[in-house]
Amino acid sequence: MTAGSTPYRTLGLARDLEDRLMFLRDIDQMKSIVRQTLLADGSRQETDAEHSWELGMMVMTLADYAPAGVDRFRVMQMVLLHDLVEIDAGDTYAYDPAANADKDAREQRAADRIFGLLPTEQGRAFRQLWEEFEARETPDARFARGIDRLQPLLHSYLTHGQMWHRNGIRPAQVRAGARLVQEGMPELAAFIDAMLTDCEARGFFPDLGPETGA
Amino acid sequence: MTAGSTPYRTLGLARDLEDRLMFLRDIDQMKSIVRQTLLADGSRQETDAEHSWELGMMVMTLADYAPAGVDRFRVMQMVLLHDLVEIDAGDTYAYDPAANADKDAREQRAADRIFGLLPTEQGRAFRQLWEEFEARETPDARFARGIDRLQPLLHSYLTHGQMWHRNGIRPAQVRAGARLVQEGMPELAAFIDAMLTDCEARGFFPDLGPETGA
Repeated sequence: MTAGSTPYRTLGLARDLEDRLMFLRDIDQMKSIVRQTLLADGSRQETDAEHSWELGMMVMTLADYAPAGVDRFRVMQMVLLHDLVEIDAGDTYAYDPAANADKDAREQRAADRIFGLLPTEQGRAFRQLWEEFEARETPDARFARGIDRLQPLLHSYLTHGQMWHRNGIRPAQVRAGARLVQEGMPELAAFIDAMLTDCEARGFFPDLGPETGA
Repeated sequence: MTAGSTPYRTLGLARDLEDRLMFLRDIDQMKSIVRQTLLADGSRQETDAEHSWELGMMVMTLADYAPAGVDRFRVMQMVLLHDLVEIDAGDTYAYDPAANADKDAREQRAADRIFGLLPTEQGRAFRQLWEEFEARETPDARFARGIDRLQPLLHSYLTHGQMWHRNGIRPAQVRAGARLVQEGMPELAAFIDAMLTDCEARGFFPDLGPETGA
């Protein structure tokens, strides 16, 4: 192994601490994964790390709109780590059916490696949070997933659908994603509807001809 | 006011929700503030949003090294929001004494405006977390601050002190900052010492001649 791959080795750390530091070094790659979401001011596309930070702030800011019983701390941890698998699996655009077909297999392999960098017990705890997020069966996971889908929706609204135009996204696709938000945070359902109606009225969706049932 | 300054106005939202959404739009500027810290791979400098996300992941990953009684959820919230004031006050480089002289006044004004965007009660809660972080009097705040200072230290180590060279930083300055880490997370004190000794041995600090007592 090169020195670059084991930067802390010469310091003689306990294995537990070295493993955690190596995990932190590895996940820094989240800052180099570019998403299909523009910053709110439209100046550039955001990174996975920036996206994940914003989700954490949304959990704090919109906590009063969470369904009763949602554990904000668990949700916060879920949103901070939910995209780590993209370090190996890449960012799978929510509106790309082909890429989504083998997404699960790619992400499971990524989870094996990335969470496997950590001490066993901690790696297992992190992975369970990620699996729970992906499964969307608990209220915590549904709220976390709602936040994850609401964020790009807000950015698309603020930037007048530029990325939808660039990527040829149809309203039905956006509405399908928006349902995940409404499922996880029912209190925001009316707001989401109003925002999507406004998107349509103001031409934020590209004109792609009649929908054939997406 | 222009439409750009009140993008949600036409949707007829309740004031509480509109205020929270406007706060979230405003803090997106954290993605446009560039810090004096390189990514772990040295490819570019990171943004405040990326830095804050990494701190959240460090709180999760290094939780077992926190002093007894530290509340990880409170610490997590502190690290996610601790740099919001930089949206108005700018990033004050830890090693810039002139910029640090009026940092407090600039940041208090920034806190007034940014936390003032939120509904009163929530704005007050966020600001209290930020004030607690700044004051460094509670174990939660000291741990959060330790994490905040450890992060650039790790990055400087991984990138062989490139930013210290670029900015002419002396070992005594780095050691002073490192003491904040050791104070907040005493279990890591020996590791920090070993890392700094290694930095010195391997020439990660620039050669600036004799120190005159920084």
